[in-house]
Amino acid sequence: MWILRINMTDLTYKLEELPEKYKLLYGRALTSQMVYDEVPPLCHALGTNNKLVFSAGMVTGTAAPTSARISVGGKSPLTGGIKEANAGTAWGPDLAKMQIRALVVEGQQKQKEKYWGAFIKWDAEAAKPVVEFFDATEHTGKDVYEIYPKIFEKFGDKVSIASMGTAGEFGYSNSGIVFNDMAKRPSRYAGRGGLGAVMASKRLKFLILEPKGAPGIDMVDKALFDVGRKKLIDAIRSHPISQPKGGLNSYGTAVLVNILNEAGGLPTRNFSAGRFEGAAKTSGEAIFETNKERMGKEIYNHACSPGCIIQCSNTYYNPDGTEATSCIEYESTWALGANLNIDNLDDIAVMVQLCNAYGLDTIETGGTIGVAMEGGLLEFGDSKGAIQMIHEMGKGTPTGRTLGGGTGVTGKIYGVERVPAVKNQGMPAYEPRAVKGIGITYATTTMGADHTAGYTICPEILGVSGKLDPLSPEGKAALSRAFQATTAFIDSCGHCLFIAFPILDIASGFEGVIEECNGVLGTNWNADDIVAYGAKTLKVEKMFNEAAGITNTADRIPEFMKLEPLPPHNQVFDISDEVLDSVYKDL
Amino acid sequence: MWILRINMTDLTYKLEELPEKYKLLYGRALTSQMVYDEVPPLCHALGTNNKLVFSAGMVTGTAAPTSARISVGGKSPLTGGIKEANAGTAWGPDLAKMQIRALVVEGQQKQKEKYWGAFIKWDAEAAKPVVEFFDATEHTGKDVYEIYPKIFEKFGDKVSIASMGTAGEFGYSNSGIVFNDMAKRPSRYAGRGGLGAVMASKRLKFLILEPKGAPGIDMVDKALFDVGRKKLIDAIRSHPISQPKGGLNSYGTAVLVNILNEAGGLPTRNFSAGRFEGAAKTSGEAIFETNKERMGKEIYNHACSPGCIIQCSNTYYNPDGTEATSCIEYESTWALGANLNIDNLDDIAVMVQLCNAYGLDTIETGGTIGVAMEGGLLEFGDSKGAIQMIHEMGKGTPTGRTLGGGTGVTGKIYGVERVPAVKNQGMPAYEPRAVKGIGITYATTTMGADHTAGYTICPEILGVSGKLDPLSPEGKAALSRAFQATTAFIDSCGHCLFIAFPILDIASGFEGVIEECNGVLGTNWNADDIVAYGAKTLKVEKMFNEAAGITNTADRIPEFMKLEPLPPHNQVFDISDEVLDSVYKDL
Repeated sequence: MWILRINMTDLTYKLEELPEKYKLLYGRALTSQMVYDEVPPLCHALGTNNKLVFSAGMVTGTAAPTSARISVGGKSPLTGGIKEANAGTAWGPDLAKMQIRALVVEGQQKQKEKYWGAFIKWDAEAAKPVVEFFDATEHTGKDVYEIYPKIFEKFGDKVSIASMGTAGEFGYSNSGIVFNDMAKRPSRYAGRGGLGAVMASKRLKFLILEPKGAPGIDMVDKALFDVGRKKLIDAIRSHPISQPKGGLNSYGTAVLVNILNEAGGLPTRNFSAGRFEGAAKTSGEAIFETNKERMGKEIYNHACSPGCIIQCSNTYYNPDGTEATSCIEYESTWALGANLNIDNLDDIAVMVQLCNAYGLDTIETGGTIGVAMEGGLLEFGDSKGAIQMIHEMGKGTPTGRTLGGGTGVTGKIYGVERVPAVKNQGMPAYEPRAVKGIGITYATTTMGADHTAGYTICPEILGVSGKLDPLSPEGKAALSRAFQATTAFIDSCGHCLFIAFPILDIASGFEGVIEECNGVLGTNWNADDIVAYGAKTLKVEKMFNEAAGITNTADRIPEFMKLEPLPPHNQVFDISDEVLDSVYKDL
Repeated sequence: MWILRINMTDLTYKLEELPEKYKLLYGRALTSQMVYDEVPPLCHALGTNNKLVFSAGMVTGTAAPTSARISVGGKSPLTGGIKEANAGTAWGPDLAKMQIRALVVEGQQKQKEKYWGAFIKWDAEAAKPVVEFFDATEHTGKDVYEIYPKIFEKFGDKVSIASMGTAGEFGYSNSGIVFNDMAKRPSRYAGRGGLGAVMASKRLKFLILEPKGAPGIDMVDKALFDVGRKKLIDAIRSHPISQPKGGLNSYGTAVLVNILNEAGGLPTRNFSAGRFEGAAKTSGEAIFETNKERMGKEIYNHACSPGCIIQCSNTYYNPDGTEATSCIEYESTWALGANLNIDNLDDIAVMVQLCNAYGLDTIETGGTIGVAMEGGLLEFGDSKGAIQMIHEMGKGTPTGRTLGGGTGVTGKIYGVERVPAVKNQGMPAYEPRAVKGIGITYATTTMGADHTAGYTICPEILGVSGKLDPLSPEGKAALSRAFQATTAFIDSCGHCLFIAFPILDIASGFEGVIEECNGVLGTNWNADDIVAYGAKTLKVEKMFNEAAGITNTADRIPEFMKLEPLPPHNQVFDISDEVLDSVYKDL
């Protein structure tokens, strides 16, 4: 098992034996630990001392269902703190199969005009991965949908590709790292926190993996793994949210639009209301029905990555039956819909596709345009204007460059007070004033406002793992803490976070995940160990942030949410600072 | 003695008796204490909870020489921390003469389209100040040089005016509060930290003072004051830097250009070198000689405010003898000169005048354009392009709005690594790598990079109060600490910081200042008390910053200065974090 270091300063690489101390660290646990160990917390995020660390999860590359996640870590140019963003893509298993526990990109090319690609393949003779560098300058300044086919053509159908778009090249804090999906679309983003700009700052355009002939994943106890895998598959297949033709497979993550709207927690017009008149028109059901009408049949969703049996990724089709985009996530249809007072799905699809093409995070993009609308640059509801704004970002016009800085910076530049961001990262699609637990997660996670960091929506809205009153602050700090710790483990095991729905409700599913991991690693973990593993990762992240100057005072919801009651519930965010601080203090 | 509170939410005011606890607090000591006591540290700097506090110094309004300073405090939209910016103007004595110890602007108009003025005059009958509000909307969106004459016309020749320009109205973090000079020019700026935007966020366009009939300054011991005043006047008149036709009176603050250039500490081309080939052409001597040639006689400088006997403010004339601008400070000719590789004084004068007209801080403006040049928006040395950039800021074009955010934000938006800022505030005209003590001041002051906060240049470069090697780190933490504490006192006593030159070298001058203060206040302070007074203010500021999330990790010089040796001395900034932290720890 190796750490592969790619040094962009001199275009060299080296393979290191995985040190003993990292033996049980995978995915987010490893990226966060290595960032903590190796990146100076006060370094310039786009400077030579920042690093990008890629690591797949414990069971990634095995036959475990829905487990093709890749974590990317580094210091975020958006938050100034630690960042882990992950995506589902064949790239994750491909890295794992080559037994590269961590791929670390370090240093920086001083010649700024040129960009490089790194082609990493398995050398069967030497029984190890090797790296070749190539000049990728010709592929810069372009739509990633234009360049991916050329790279597949050059390196063959069996490779997987990580890259970034013009958003990264412009150094935007709103720029992601993109991976290919199953249909080779450059559409699977480790989107949040500006890691695309970190990759670009090193002048690295592509990381291409060809695992042909690689040994795959070693397992200590294959039988135990198989037992666990079976239990998890059964749980996924029997839970109403994750089962075939269930909520996610039919309507995608956008199934949440109507649910959150009903709950009064769908942030509308830059977080000035909790209910959107046009919600239904932008929902997963609307996507499904529009597709059915346009394609003449019911179309269920597909897997974003190998081995996924939840299959929540939709494709949205144009009236003429051609593909508009894949996929429209809940976060995207909200960020570019309700948040902007836009209820036209076709326009939302155009925006999602543009974000993918330019390398922008859809959440941060929607948050930014919402603030820009608030700041008077555009009317709420002006979808053509919003499309134009995304073009401006992608092309780097003066306005576009500002917007590329993200929600917080745009608020600063345009003197806006209602800026929905924590640690400078724009808020996702759940209103803290209407769903208190998720507000605690936004406030306290090391990542900046991030729903995936501790998805208390499960009990607060969905009735998964019980049902709690979303408006009540009662017990929500402990809830957020438990979800954050468990999530940090899930982000390390390689499974998609969506296994949480079945495993929270079905005990044998949860057992199955632990057995899978014990099978691969030879550990003897129980449920407590899982939480402790996650908590340890959170503590490391918190230590990095503190050394980077991000203290408890940054674990706060923006002031306007404490001053302005949100319709329809007319509540403010009423969690005290002490309660917020207890989340990590009691970890 | 009163606190006058102007509430912009409902356009009301109230007079409060000065509480006992504030009895000995004036100027910066009072503005910082009141900001600490009343402004929530995590509030939005442009929101309703921020406040602006104006307070004149202990001897302001008396016959003490060079003492017409006004301090303005608030939470800074630029740094996110506490801010005190001060200026020399008749406005300071006018406030003091009305016995208003602090004028506090609080709340916020919700109707954003309208701006208001507040006319504060002495009501002889009631023996107290009264406030009238008037609609000032017609004066927004305009050059302050255009609107000041109209206000003087409306309110009469005897008033003094505080305002802000379009930079403030656009909400720029680079926007100052402007006061009139002796010739009624809107040219005396409390420039740093974006307080203009705070004023504008409240929809307050003018604060107009008419002290006619006001009682003036009470003194406990007039005889002692007179003794002290005489000593200080003698010291000022006999020191080579401050005496009539001395360095400051002949060449203005720009006398420093050649001195710093010689020392290799004149930041050049966005802090990439310490010496500028065109330095002499942009110096105070060049201003003096150009004026002499154009006006046919030697022209010495004038006072910016009543009672100043140093008189360092120049006027720069066009070839046809008309006034180009007043005045070109050292910081301005550097920021818009050497820092941008520009050596044309006429172009620099145009830029200074535009900054004044639009309400921009010249230091932040130069720092920002330097970073923009580094980011490829303009070639270094393109003075016409730089002039155009200032117009863009003042007019609020898309590029201009980004640049209005200041040095740090511009660096972020354009992905620049070499960003000379501390706590997001752009660095002034002394290179930390070539003058170590001032680097310590930049790093550690509560204000963000600020030379006036602890001007170690005195011993490091000018040989005032002894002579130290600027390149040596030896003893510089203690030096910066002593200067910062003493400066906090000077910023509270009402004298201009430039009395430091004579009083550091001439013991009787220093005695004189203390006697003046004891005479006014009835205290019995000695030199140690002065330092303790200043140190207490620094501690309050530090507490505010910590509560605002600005910790020791923000007391750092930017990474690039630790990585890139600066020619000609080829040194990096080599002060350890521990030494930096000792400055406030040992306060």
